[in-house]
Amino acid sequence: MRYHAPMHYELLVQMKKTLGQLDKWLETATAHATAKSFDPKLYLEFRLAPDQRPFSFQVQTACDTVKLAAARLAGKQAPGHPDTEQSLDELRARVKSVTEYLDGFTAKDFEGAATRSITQPRWEGKVMTGTDYFLEHALPNFYFHVTHAYAILRHNGVGLGKRDYLGPLTMRQP
Amino acid sequence: MRYHAPMHYELLVQMKKTLGQLDKWLETATAHATAKSFDPKLYLEFRLAPDQRPFSFQVQTACDTVKLAAARLAGKQAPGHPDTEQSLDELRARVKSVTEYLDGFTAKDFEGAATRSITQPRWEGKVMTGTDYFLEHALPNFYFHVTHAYAILRHNGVGLGKRDYLGPLTMRQP
Repeated sequence: MRYHAPMHYELLVQMKKTLGQLDKWLETATAHATAKSFDPKLYLEFRLAPDQRPFSFQVQTACDTVKLAAARLAGKQAPGHPDTEQSLDELRARVKSVTEYLDGFTAKDFEGAATRSITQPRWEGKVMTGTDYFLEHALPNFYFHVTHAYAILRHNGVGLGKRDYLGPLTMRQP
Repeated sequence: MRYHAPMHYELLVQMKKTLGQLDKWLETATAHATAKSFDPKLYLEFRLAPDQRPFSFQVQTACDTVKLAAARLAGKQAPGHPDTEQSLDELRARVKSVTEYLDGFTAKDFEGAATRSITQPRWEGKVMTGTDYFLEHALPNFYFHVTHAYAILRHNGVGLGKRDYLGPLTMRQP
């Protein structure tokens, strides 16, 4: 029987791919601002509702969600990122930093992840298993924030489509 | 060693949970329209950009994405849904129909899913493995469309928050 990488690793690889797509959206947004002669810094404060978080937060939180998921599931300490980005280029650097952090993991790091006990200060002493935390919390949160980043750009005229969201698909000849 | 359900099944269970949350957002949106004295049918055409699809499409496509993923990965034929919904109540019936369809699957249905060959007419004869299709295509697409549905409601004043998105989390005493 062939070796099956733990589910958590396979999903983290997919999330890393999506971060790569997010980086391309930031590049496209910068080009859009240049073409329309507005300061790309403006994107950072755009939001879809007055009581939703702005674009910068969506990107930062997408990065943190996958970074913390990888670290917690592998029992490691994640590097800190202080949320001080002031431009799209700085947000791209954040995405790059997290992508490189994820590059350091292998499937073997997640062999004990399913049953690892995960907690956060806000959970007031309660815990989730690694799999429950990943599937119920980290995974949907990650896609929530990347999709909000995408939607804020689309709402503000940046030319993106579903292919930019998904990225290339691993198709084969039958 | 305890039995591990195939990854595809565990993810489909999570996606089904998210459909349950989507149903609650539709209920909250209906109550919001009633409180503000507008016709809840109006939501169906709301969109975040003129060249994005409207709310009704986001809900229909979220439903189709998870329905088709389950069917294709299990080698079954999915029931058809003709995209004729004209109200939030009809969209809720669509969500309910797909949720009940997903209830009919067990972990055993996905034991061959990882290596099953998946194709769609638009792929022009090419195929994806079950796992590639699920992780690269179905999973991110599903969260794309549910998050767009959520974001369109938030953009139009419906009172939802992250807890409504995630739903209850399986927390335990340590």
